[in-house]
Amino acid sequence: MENYRIYLTEEEIPTHFYNLRADMKTKPAPLLNPGTHQPMTKEELTPVFCEELVDQELDNDTRFFEIPEEVREYYRMFRPSPLVRAFNLEKNLGTPAKIYFKFEGNNTSGSHKLNSAAAQAYYAKKQGLKGVTTETGAGQWGTAMSMACSHFGLECDVYMVKVSYEQKPFRREVMRTYGARVTSSPSETTSVGRMLLEKYPGTTGSLGCAISEAVEAAVSREGYRYVLGSVLNQVLLHQSVIGLESKAAFEKIGEKPDIIIGCTGGGSNLGGLIAPFMGEKLRGEADYRFIGVEPTSCPSFTRGVFAYDFCDTGKVCPLAKMYTIGSGYIPAPNHAGGLRFHGMSPILSQLYDDGEMEVVAYRQNEVFKAAEIFANAEGILPAPESSHAIRAAIDEALRCKEAGEEKVILFGLSGTGYFDLKAFEQYNNGTMQDYVPSDEELQAAIATIPAV
Amino acid sequence: MENYRIYLTEEEIPTHFYNLRADMKTKPAPLLNPGTHQPMTKEELTPVFCEELVDQELDNDTRFFEIPEEVREYYRMFRPSPLVRAFNLEKNLGTPAKIYFKFEGNNTSGSHKLNSAAAQAYYAKKQGLKGVTTETGAGQWGTAMSMACSHFGLECDVYMVKVSYEQKPFRREVMRTYGARVTSSPSETTSVGRMLLEKYPGTTGSLGCAISEAVEAAVSREGYRYVLGSVLNQVLLHQSVIGLESKAAFEKIGEKPDIIIGCTGGGSNLGGLIAPFMGEKLRGEADYRFIGVEPTSCPSFTRGVFAYDFCDTGKVCPLAKMYTIGSGYIPAPNHAGGLRFHGMSPILSQLYDDGEMEVVAYRQNEVFKAAEIFANAEGILPAPESSHAIRAAIDEALRCKEAGEEKVILFGLSGTGYFDLKAFEQYNNGTMQDYVPSDEELQAAIATIPAV
Repeated sequence: MENYRIYLTEEEIPTHFYNLRADMKTKPAPLLNPGTHQPMTKEELTPVFCEELVDQELDNDTRFFEIPEEVREYYRMFRPSPLVRAFNLEKNLGTPAKIYFKFEGNNTSGSHKLNSAAAQAYYAKKQGLKGVTTETGAGQWGTAMSMACSHFGLECDVYMVKVSYEQKPFRREVMRTYGARVTSSPSETTSVGRMLLEKYPGTTGSLGCAISEAVEAAVSREGYRYVLGSVLNQVLLHQSVIGLESKAAFEKIGEKPDIIIGCTGGGSNLGGLIAPFMGEKLRGEADYRFIGVEPTSCPSFTRGVFAYDFCDTGKVCPLAKMYTIGSGYIPAPNHAGGLRFHGMSPILSQLYDDGEMEVVAYRQNEVFKAAEIFANAEGILPAPESSHAIRAAIDEALRCKEAGEEKVILFGLSGTGYFDLKAFEQYNNGTMQDYVPSDEELQAAIATIPAV
Repeated sequence: MENYRIYLTEEEIPTHFYNLRADMKTKPAPLLNPGTHQPMTKEELTPVFCEELVDQELDNDTRFFEIPEEVREYYRMFRPSPLVRAFNLEKNLGTPAKIYFKFEGNNTSGSHKLNSAAAQAYYAKKQGLKGVTTETGAGQWGTAMSMACSHFGLECDVYMVKVSYEQKPFRREVMRTYGARVTSSPSETTSVGRMLLEKYPGTTGSLGCAISEAVEAAVSREGYRYVLGSVLNQVLLHQSVIGLESKAAFEKIGEKPDIIIGCTGGGSNLGGLIAPFMGEKLRGEADYRFIGVEPTSCPSFTRGVFAYDFCDTGKVCPLAKMYTIGSGYIPAPNHAGGLRFHGMSPILSQLYDDGEMEVVAYRQNEVFKAAEIFANAEGILPAPESSHAIRAAIDEALRCKEAGEEKVILFGLSGTGYFDLKAFEQYNNGTMQDYVPSDEELQAAIATIPAV
């Protein structure tokens, strides 16, 4: 009997994070000081980030970082996560392809974000810090960080994008249950928040603005540092546990994926899932097709440029070289909250620029249709973000059906949609809007990218 | 290394439901025809329920019913569910007791309800039916039934208690995503609904009323039957998979629970969890302490009477002999929605009357405090219903601490609280109300119990 779910044992939780940068021919470009345009040094970064995280951020060479025992112990409450064979989806599609998904949503944060949150909270505690600040958009990252801070005994201040704070009160209450302080952003608690409130009185906030507030709050308080849930190299490093477990599970059943698919907002889910497979490819040991999936409403890869840009609206963060549509881009109403960031992981950006991976963009209605198909077949209500990967996986499986090919498809089911039912309601009612920015709109946003 | 989660393999999913009634000295009393007060016959029940379910309902003797292969196949998408050692909770409480919980919330219905929903949908489909009707209060059962109907290809009509329909639009949208038709109850679609709307124009509905509407809708439509998510013998039969898996997992690690705890609304979760252990006890093969936990706001066991009573407000359903506080009882605002039913499973009622199990009642604020402690220790946000069991488990663990006893405690974590954040918000804000009905209030409700 073939199993639906392939579980590793708790002993098989990875012992080391895998640093994909060590195997990249072209390393991701360094972060630059926004004032001097010189590469950020450890000294410049440590007032903002924990020391060990800065070391991880800057290290392009060390292939493996040992996962601290305390973090592995925490992982054992929700890892190893299952690799699942989507038998019913295959049957419903009538495809000869084998479809697998790595399910990261079976924890209360509802997504893969907890993998990095645990590591970041541990390092902060180990450094003797009192607390951390962060931002959250859709709410997954803020929830994950709240949970990790509760476990490791840290204070947690979350700046939550105002529109989410108001539309997702339930996310806020989960964070509060885990003891976090949640502030609607922009707020009166920071100078950048006050400045934005004065300039745009009716603003509903943005991720870029919440980042600016969280960074300001961290550097202005004793014993605090800032933590970020995606984009950064350190985050992709931690998320490599997704790919490492997936690879080990495939080896256990003597199978190998041909196509690996993940949604990509800041890049932590996709970067983590593909890491060890991409490493094999870069070392010439194996070949895979990698497909990143983004929304047409925020097309960083498919319509952006590869350039140094600001990560935040307040322009207090370092510049990152990435695919970007400009920090001035105001994401349209798009319920795949986690994919609304204007930029992209520098690691993934470099890999895409090097031709090592493909990217496709989908409209929201096609994505929710895929979510509906998947939910009904596999009994899991997926997050809107993850549903982008589902859409691409379904389309690849249908291509296999046309071609009669028995390919093995792996996609990342990065989270569940239990807090995104407002969007499902719109889809169910037929009132969901697709959105594709016009060329003029994108050009205007791209024009906000600084010349470096 | 001791594991946090003890998983059985998919091959170890039970092959048979266990019928606890076969081992009961005093069998649960039969359902009575509300008109004649004679035991309901198969002929009287089959217009309402599927035939195989009627057979299961009436059979007090057959010890095992084979689980159909199609149902086992469906179970493989979310079963076996993990038995989890609550290491962090033990540590935080400083107890020498070992605490385990059987986690039934790791599926999109968010609770154990899917176990019975799958079986009921399968039997309905096998009988060639077109669809089923049911009611839902908190929403777990309606979601589970929607999911199971989607899988087996049945229409699903859910009467959702008006207050939940309005306060839990997200639950409604999950059901709609699975293709169910969801109607706010009381509604204009049934005569009992119209009667109640006329009599109580501002009513926010009740479970008893929604049951009446769903039964009426089922019997008045071609190819439809009614399905119920708790109370009935057939439902406890299906839920025995919880206990069977728990027992098998304990045997795997060479451990044995001393105390088994579950929350109890209609009784399906508690009845399923304890079934095989209670069977051993009744057969004199082993001894366990069993503790049912109910809310003080709806104290069927602790302040009710053991008598024949109506299951629904419209009095269209058979009479059941059970612990009840009267079908006229209007549950107070109580967010543990699934525990608001005035009656109790006839099987559990008989066992309690025979002194085979204990019952305790807790106030809502104590319950949410336990939920908070558990969520922070174990990383899972529990359902308010399940948090009743957590409260009792914590209190038993603290008693072990005082007494220095290393007991093994098992409790049922029947579901997650992702759709109950409104209640957590009240708890977090300190505005949650405890509720204990006065003696006069209870006496008035108990006076609505018919003389049989």
